[in-house]
Amino acid sequence: MTTRRALVDRLASVVGPSNVVHRREDLLVYEFDGTIEQSLPDAVVFPGSTEEVAAVVRACNSLGVAVTPRGAGTGLSGGAVPAQRGVVVATGRMRRILEIDPLERLAVAEPGVPNIQLSEAAAEHGLFYAPDPSSQKACTIGGNVAENAGGPHCLALGVTTNHVLGLEIVTADGEVVTLGGRTCETSGYDLRGVFIGSEGTLGIATRIVVRLLPVPAAVVTLLGVFDSVERASATVSAIIAGGMVPAALEMIDRLCLQAAEAGLQCGYPADAGAVLLVELDGVDEVVGPQAALATAACLAHGAREVRTARDPAERELLWKGRKGAIGSLGRLAPNYYILDGVVPRSRLVEVMARVSEVAKEYGLLVANVFHAGDGNLHPLLLFDDREPGARARVLEAGAHIMRACVEAGGALSGEHGIGFEKRAFMPWLYGEADLENMERLRGVFGNGGRFNPCKLLPTGTGCGEMGHNQAAMRAAGPEAYV
Amino acid sequence: MTTRRALVDRLASVVGPSNVVHRREDLLVYEFDGTIEQSLPDAVVFPGSTEEVAAVVRACNSLGVAVTPRGAGTGLSGGAVPAQRGVVVATGRMRRILEIDPLERLAVAEPGVPNIQLSEAAAEHGLFYAPDPSSQKACTIGGNVAENAGGPHCLALGVTTNHVLGLEIVTADGEVVTLGGRTCETSGYDLRGVFIGSEGTLGIATRIVVRLLPVPAAVVTLLGVFDSVERASATVSAIIAGGMVPAALEMIDRLCLQAAEAGLQCGYPADAGAVLLVELDGVDEVVGPQAALATAACLAHGAREVRTARDPAERELLWKGRKGAIGSLGRLAPNYYILDGVVPRSRLVEVMARVSEVAKEYGLLVANVFHAGDGNLHPLLLFDDREPGARARVLEAGAHIMRACVEAGGALSGEHGIGFEKRAFMPWLYGEADLENMERLRGVFGNGGRFNPCKLLPTGTGCGEMGHNQAAMRAAGPEAYV
Repeated sequence: MTTRRALVDRLASVVGPSNVVHRREDLLVYEFDGTIEQSLPDAVVFPGSTEEVAAVVRACNSLGVAVTPRGAGTGLSGGAVPAQRGVVVATGRMRRILEIDPLERLAVAEPGVPNIQLSEAAAEHGLFYAPDPSSQKACTIGGNVAENAGGPHCLALGVTTNHVLGLEIVTADGEVVTLGGRTCETSGYDLRGVFIGSEGTLGIATRIVVRLLPVPAAVVTLLGVFDSVERASATVSAIIAGGMVPAALEMIDRLCLQAAEAGLQCGYPADAGAVLLVELDGVDEVVGPQAALATAACLAHGAREVRTARDPAERELLWKGRKGAIGSLGRLAPNYYILDGVVPRSRLVEVMARVSEVAKEYGLLVANVFHAGDGNLHPLLLFDDREPGARARVLEAGAHIMRACVEAGGALSGEHGIGFEKRAFMPWLYGEADLENMERLRGVFGNGGRFNPCKLLPTGTGCGEMGHNQAAMRAAGPEAYV
Repeated sequence: MTTRRALVDRLASVVGPSNVVHRREDLLVYEFDGTIEQSLPDAVVFPGSTEEVAAVVRACNSLGVAVTPRGAGTGLSGGAVPAQRGVVVATGRMRRILEIDPLERLAVAEPGVPNIQLSEAAAEHGLFYAPDPSSQKACTIGGNVAENAGGPHCLALGVTTNHVLGLEIVTADGEVVTLGGRTCETSGYDLRGVFIGSEGTLGIATRIVVRLLPVPAAVVTLLGVFDSVERASATVSAIIAGGMVPAALEMIDRLCLQAAEAGLQCGYPADAGAVLLVELDGVDEVVGPQAALATAACLAHGAREVRTARDPAERELLWKGRKGAIGSLGRLAPNYYILDGVVPRSRLVEVMARVSEVAKEYGLLVANVFHAGDGNLHPLLLFDDREPGARARVLEAGAHIMRACVEAGGALSGEHGIGFEKRAFMPWLYGEADLENMERLRGVFGNGGRFNPCKLLPTGTGCGEMGHNQAAMRAAGPEAYV
């Protein structure tokens, strides 16, 4: 048994004492991420280089201490929460953009670079980095890789895995390896693709090669105002069926747009049943006709009004509402629990109805803001964590909603990951042999069970502290894993 | 040691005697695929169901016999060649389209369905399957999955991995598992992504769920005629830099277009230095302006002429030339060796020059037809296999060309796979630890070394028969694997 003192000393010998955090009051901020799970680490370490990351991982392995990688801690599935305590490896000091190559349209960055800084640095070359999570001002590219993050502008352009060409990683057993390269094609097994979205269970990305895209010459942002979610959903289907893929196609329901409007004054009509935010980009000659088609689709499906942002400031404001909508829900309740499910687009209306039903059954308010274009739902269950039993009720309602997504032929995550909270649900989708293969895959990079334990897969021991979702799962799913 | 008789009897007990081929004269057609490697199997078996595939794999494993999966045998990296003899599992009997769901825009198919039949079956719903290898009339969707096949229309839409939602596979150890599902998002590790492009080394896909897309309302096909490859390349860069991603952007060089014109009378100007085939699709309002922009880009970069296909027949003819170009090279030499390399788009002209240089050094004619939009080169080295030493010379020249791609920051395959021929080159891109991880990944699905052996990775024993590329590799690369 390693004492905490011995652990801290060992880590300090690798990264220097000032880069190890170990006092309880300092550790408290590393106890949680963007979801509602919590677990206190024994120490947090801030390596400054690939070599230091590797040395830290090897030290933890030799001491038998669990390792949990962490970016900005904005994750929404508990991925950065140290389920078995141990050491959190935070990438905050590795925040250099090492290269911007405008000719090849790529950038090379350390993992701790905030997402938005890639686009800011590329802007002078007329380029940008496409995936734009709502947390993009804070969340890091390393965390984006771990969770295969999405964002409103991923409808036409794809999520993180479509924009990362290559990686240098420190594996779970402390080796430095390269995955992918600097072109869109991978030679051999797509280990790059495996790593992206592996939720920090295979290793820690220490260098990331991303594609940059040219900033579109023209952008048109439309706000379609509807009386109901059903009409807005029908419009989404019509736009997609018309053969057009907008840059973004986002829906915000009544509760959410009211909160956003109250908090951010972004110009949303507070009496609407739902709004659609449609963005079209490209060259002028193309965007104009597309905007006309999208407007016509909104009107044909009963839009009360279609507003076009007249200038960048108005466009900015419409997006401020969308990206800040979730934060604004603080006006309605002290806590929210955000879900991330995917359903086939044609089942959207039906599953949304089920979401309302579940919320009603559990006496919870539910708000919705989501990527309608790709059927990626984000119901937000509002609650007060101080109220006894509230958290368990919310988790149970959440499990029912995830179950509904799976039963509609959908998936357990569009962009937030499985993490801790949904790992118990994996057997709803996969058989025993499938899960065993995933378990073996985890071992490919040397994870023997102490590298970001209790995440993604339903197996693993010693996860009891965070195990309350098992109860929720049993409530929701008859064939669930036990 | 199993006798061939015992092997054949065992296989016949699983699939019935009429579905096992074992006489030498019948086996000859299964000795090769679309490349120049050859190796005779001991038997070829045609299972009719997932259960039969699994039983065949388990039987071969218990007898210690190598298994090599095979679709239509059109592959271009030796993937379906039974390097260690043993049993070829051919999917030709499993050719049912099990489901077309126009609402969800997906199809479910058995692996032996020819690529083009998916689009044909989906046509009545106004849908199509996007990846379109030149061999699409013959090649199977199972083979496409194994090689992560591309095609001219993959520039805007992406290759096979972007269009396959889920898979049922029989693993290398004979288990039936499911990867992915019926939506675009995968829950947990992306084993679906790992399997696609794993070149038949992890298992055999027995059921494939693919995305279908709406047939575009409008299509414009342009032929830009240039005096040189350089000017055509500059046009490619200009079109992409303009922020437009055409549906297809293909280049055909002088030698290739002359052969195509002579063989197919497709209307290519035989005195041009290169032609660009540019296709734009979408809705009328958008395609018109895009075509005008693409035409302007061609003319601004010295196009002698830009021709627009006036009707579907003329469009068909232009594509017939492109898709039949490689076959037409038979007019110039009895054999060709097609390479598949990727380079960063900005290095295209320089690497093309190096290709010409290498061909000259080795006294070989080279023709080029390729996906210019994504820097995916396909130099074709023409030769006569009956000429002593010709094959070794071609392989050595090919190795130098692949080396040039890697040195330009590119990759060893855009869409044909690594297979047998390029596995010796993998260490040009990857270190020892990287290759060891890939080796371990291969084991995740139970491949102990006898499931499609001697493919993709440079390791493996008993591959001597097909080992002549080692010599070519040593000639081309100083840091090569030995």
